[in-house]
Amino acid sequence: MYSFKNDYSEGAHPRILNALIESNLVQDEGYGEDKYSQEAIDLLKQKLGRTDIDIHFLTGGTQTNLTSISAFLRPIDAAIAAHTGHIFVHETGAIEATGHKVITCDARVDGKLTPKKIKGVLDSHPDEHMVKPKLVYISNTTEIGSIYKKRELEDLSKFCKENQLILYLDGARLGSALCSEENDLKLSDLPDLVDAFYIGGTKNGALLGEALVICKESLKEDFRFHMKQKGALLAKGRLIGIQFLELFRDNLYFELADHANKMASKLSDGIRQANLTFLTHSPSNQIFPILPNALVNELQKDYLFYNWEKVDAENSAVRLVTSWATREEEVMRFVERILRFCQTESR
Amino acid sequence: MYSFKNDYSEGAHPRILNALIESNLVQDEGYGEDKYSQEAIDLLKQKLGRTDIDIHFLTGGTQTNLTSISAFLRPIDAAIAAHTGHIFVHETGAIEATGHKVITCDARVDGKLTPKKIKGVLDSHPDEHMVKPKLVYISNTTEIGSIYKKRELEDLSKFCKENQLILYLDGARLGSALCSEENDLKLSDLPDLVDAFYIGGTKNGALLGEALVICKESLKEDFRFHMKQKGALLAKGRLIGIQFLELFRDNLYFELADHANKMASKLSDGIRQANLTFLTHSPSNQIFPILPNALVNELQKDYLFYNWEKVDAENSAVRLVTSWATREEEVMRFVERILRFCQTESR
Amino acid sequence: MYSFKNDYSEGAHPRILNALIESNLVQDEGYGEDKYSQEAIDLLKQKLGRTDIDIHFLTGGTQTNLTSISAFLRPIDAAIAAHTGHIFVHETGAIEATGHKVITCDARVDGKLTPKKIKGVLDSHPDEHMVKPKLVYISNTTEIGSIYKKRELEDLSKFCKENQLILYLDGARLGSALCSEENDLKLSDLPDLVDAFYIGGTKNGALLGEALVICKESLKEDFRFHMKQKGALLAKGRLIGIQFLELFRDNLYFELADHANKMASKLSDGIRQANLTFLTHSPSNQIFPILPNALVNELQKDYLFYNWEKVDAENSAVRLVTSWATREEEVMRFVERILRFCQTESR
Amino acid sequence: MYSFKNDYSEGAHPRILNALIESNLVQDEGYGEDKYSQEAIDLLKQKLGRTDIDIHFLTGGTQTNLTSISAFLRPIDAAIAAHTGHIFVHETGAIEATGHKVITCDARVDGKLTPKKIKGVLDSHPDEHMVKPKLVYISNTTEIGSIYKKRELEDLSKFCKENQLILYLDGARLGSALCSEENDLKLSDLPDLVDAFYIGGTKNGALLGEALVICKESLKEDFRFHMKQKGALLAKGRLIGIQFLELFRDNLYFELADHANKMASKLSDGIRQANLTFLTHSPSNQIFPILPNALVNELQKDYLFYNWEKVDAENSAVRLVTSWATREEEVMRFVERILRFCQTESR
Repeated sequence: MYSFKNDYSEGAHPRILNALIESNLVQDEGYGEDKYSQEAIDLLKQKLGRTDIDIHFLTGGTQTNLTSISAFLRPIDAAIAAHTGHIFVHETGAIEATGHKVITCDARVDGKLTPKKIKGVLDSHPDEHMVKPKLVYISNTTEIGSIYKKRELEDLSKFCKENQLILYLDGARLGSALCSEENDLKLSDLPDLVDAFYIGGTKNGALLGEALVICKESLKEDFRFHMKQKGALLAKGRLIGIQFLELFRDNLYFELADHANKMASKLSDGIRQANLTFLTHSPSNQIFPILPNALVNELQKDYLFYNWEKVDAENSAVRLVTSWATREEEVMRFVERILRFCQTESR
Repeated sequence: MYSFKNDYSEGAHPRILNALIESNLVQDEGYGEDKYSQEAIDLLKQKLGRTDIDIHFLTGGTQTNLTSISAFLRPIDAAIAAHTGHIFVHETGAIEATGHKVITCDARVDGKLTPKKIKGVLDSHPDEHMVKPKLVYISNTTEIGSIYKKRELEDLSKFCKENQLILYLDGARLGSALCSEENDLKLSDLPDLVDAFYIGGTKNGALLGEALVICKESLKEDFRFHMKQKGALLAKGRLIGIQFLELFRDNLYFELADHANKMASKLSDGIRQANLTFLTHSPSNQIFPILPNALVNELQKDYLFYNWEKVDAENSAVRLVTSWATREEEVMRFVERILRFCQTESR
Repeated sequence: MYSFKNDYSEGAHPRILNALIESNLVQDEGYGEDKYSQEAIDLLKQKLGRTDIDIHFLTGGTQTNLTSISAFLRPIDAAIAAHTGHIFVHETGAIEATGHKVITCDARVDGKLTPKKIKGVLDSHPDEHMVKPKLVYISNTTEIGSIYKKRELEDLSKFCKENQLILYLDGARLGSALCSEENDLKLSDLPDLVDAFYIGGTKNGALLGEALVICKESLKEDFRFHMKQKGALLAKGRLIGIQFLELFRDNLYFELADHANKMASKLSDGIRQANLTFLTHSPSNQIFPILPNALVNELQKDYLFYNWEKVDAENSAVRLVTSWATREEEVMRFVERILRFCQTESR
Repeated sequence: MYSFKNDYSEGAHPRILNALIESNLVQDEGYGEDKYSQEAIDLLKQKLGRTDIDIHFLTGGTQTNLTSISAFLRPIDAAIAAHTGHIFVHETGAIEATGHKVITCDARVDGKLTPKKIKGVLDSHPDEHMVKPKLVYISNTTEIGSIYKKRELEDLSKFCKENQLILYLDGARLGSALCSEENDLKLSDLPDLVDAFYIGGTKNGALLGEALVICKESLKEDFRFHMKQKGALLAKGRLIGIQFLELFRDNLYFELADHANKMASKLSDGIRQANLTFLTHSPSNQIFPILPNALVNELQKDYLFYNWEKVDAENSAVRLVTSWATREEEVMRFVERILRFCQTESR
């Protein structure tokens, strides 16, 4: 069985393991105050072109989202998210567990928020009988594989500033977004556009780890206290620092994401060649082809992937995810299998 | 500089890194449902002599404590801890942040709770104007290096059962406790004595990871939901499973703890030889010698350790911690330094 | 100006004020342990035909909802509500502030939940990456004036029991529901059908006060602790006990609700006579007629009421609420004003 | 039986009931936006000599404390209180339930905090492994009947300002404090000295109600949202507004507190005359005489009061509370009973 189920099916890129081995017996400070973490932070600041930002390493996406959002909001404040947003759907109510409502906007077509949608939320929350919408949560790539273009992010940024809203970007798959063929954003554009975001490590070659970047001055204060309180300060914080240092020492982070995207692209090309269509437009490492149920059954004999949703009586959308570790020969075999099936069918 | 500051100054035991390397490219399920985690759980159940227990892997002590305690308690319930207890002092109010008061008992002498102390808490919480004391939190080793003898734990266990109290044991340094020369507890005694506990990995040779063991049936339900909600389900959950599998595959876990204890013991012996005394009796990998301030200053030129507290105008207690990675030659050098200092002084 | 804005524009029914005066200087216990509260509880148990239920007095609807729901749920549990539900829309995120997500079902037509809608929620919450839907929140009357028929409630009750869901009924306007011409439910039916509900006092003639009835055994434990923790135990708890005693001593509670309904009915009749229609079918003390904007403007010169929503360019739905205190002559004057306007217009 | 158990054993001062009756059928806005509440707020601002303060009416002390403190603090912030403080002891963990630790200082002698004690707390909370002490909670009168002198409050105020601490005063019995013979504070001194405080109504003649005064600009924002979220916005908010309007229309509030103090003073004088002593110095409406157990038993035949604590084998401290409603003849009878007992004993 080969898995296209997700981008966290393997361990870490070998260079990361090597970095752990090399540093293993060096003694250093605990709780992220080690020199590796400090160097990784300095390096990321360089890549982001800013020194007036704070960077913290956390272990995973849900932890990063809940620690940040609960630190940034007052008890009466709510987050706004796409109805497909990870914090609304797939974090077991983690944000609500810290006391905050998540208000959703319909984002059926592309998984994205727009100023217009957010405006609608503001208008329907006029007084003290309702929560205060205060933070806008977006993901790039989105949960359905789409990406934000620079212009879209600029519009959101402007709207949020004008309306005193915090703009927060979940970058669990930021690597894939920035390496997408359709992307026109640079990593260093982000600190100007959003108030906080994270650079996902777990889904792009690290064992674990996300780098939270806090850009807005007023959100920085005492953040390590929030991390400790939420159980997010690792005693051996170096574990994440070392990994980010390796990922950003040269271009490794982007090479890994680029590979994942290329593999997804090859899958898409093959699927298109078989005259099959897609549920959403997703120029990233997650694709959602619509396949005949018989083909789905056939593929499931040798491949693991998620059934995303039933499209009609005979067809289903599935989710295929590629990663830094996806092997090209498996991609080719998978595509051939589809083509073969479709040729047989069409005869 | 050599550090006796804590037991998380290095990476992981080399065998653990090897296990990560060997499994690195094998594809497996996410979120702790991989075969490594499952095997590690089965192995731990064997070692604990029980199949009717649930085991979960979390990343660190604070996370394990807050996820468990908030899962086990109703909103009105409180935890009882020694005033030195980690959840009361050193977790940035993590338990309170989940809504629960931590009630303390004075434990100045030995950092331990007793039925009598807990009884005092119950008696002073008679009605609905006060919280309900519901969970007893103990640590073994304690935060000041002492250990619970089997008889003490049996007494606590009996008292808690009689009073419908949940008994929870923080085992961040359980390895050191069980390998102490004074210990008469077996790992497999614990499921009968406490309702939940964790086996600490971070402080005994792992990169990160604690194995939470839930023994009481009513506390097991839906625990993975609580983990996800608190950001404690790693996408690459295998990372912790692989480590515990390696630690318990043979006797490695205990060998590492034993080494740490032996190193602490050598430090203690040397310090005693210099006619110096200790703040607490700690037959484990943390010791608290009382040193003349001049000696503290001298040692700090080459060693890192915590100043614990001022004892009198001329003397201070310091904390020395050893680990699986502590080098014996450094221990010997440190002891010689002390002896030399004391000889010079006494002349 | 006369107000049809809500059912809490005046003080209390005069008999309630008299009861307060008469008992005023009698000394009694605090925090709801006075004899008035005890008598009121006994009386309500009689009216409900059950002795195995617990009754508590709280000050208002939001407080009752948040105290109950947070007491009944574990951290990972969520409530299910109509998208129009009070806890979702108009309580400033009070439920989320206690840590619980509110999942909504579309209830555009009638503001009600059905087994089918709830089933949809259960089906879309299959695993630990999502919260556990655990409590079903309904209101009777609903937020848009509709009522649950006995059969509908029986179906919900059966479904909830089969699916281990707690069924909770918000009875802020329960008097109006039970006195509706279309109602076929008795107050004493409720303990068999729902797990907890409250009998609203504030909106039916009391100064303040709601009587929470807990029917399900497992939800009763330590409820006064939860009340105290949420600031819901009045020092002079007698204040609410005395009022409920007066409301249920004879038939006063139902007479007041009946008056409110009759006044709403007269308003509806008059509006229908003017050939105007309604946004929803509401056989209770809240009605939502659709009026020409010009008529709305005309009426607003002398009457207070809420603009509910724009229906089209020329028409708006408004909300008219009647109460125990609504004066019939004002109702008649209001109707005449509408009829006069419509006659003039139609000429 | 006559009760000296507390100051909330009766209803309300008759003038308050009259005010409710007179306003009863006037229609007005809900949720505290009525003209009575607005007038009461204006009146209180006058009495406080400040227009730049915000005033809100809540139903009780615990509700006021939990709503304020949770609104004022960030998740990582803690309150500091005397170990006798109401929020620490008698509110069922209400503050912790909103996520905040309450750190205590020993206040055995007089129930009061001092800059020195608070300094000790700050010094022992140096880094992110511990909560941030951020709000100082004091009560006046304190829970054991003592009062803060102006100089003490000025010292606390200065210290808090210098250390960026919020100073919050619980005024459940502020009337009694300000009318104490030993008092040198004026009501209008408070806004300059503390950041927020409340003027207690429940324990000084109202049916229910506390007036929260927010003095510090940064604490004012969106406070009504916090109230609604905590269930503290009464639909008939006028109920509290009308009462405070009556209490402060002239000098009624202070006359009631003065009566309570006078009655306590007469009790104290009598007890002193019998050569009995007191547990604490309490120049207010709560006194804590130490009585022979036999006398306690004798008195309990006809009087209700709390046994406070055992002093030695033969003597106990009891708590006697007087109020606006305490009848002087009952006070005299009680004193006579004590004197008679002591004379008999001494013979």
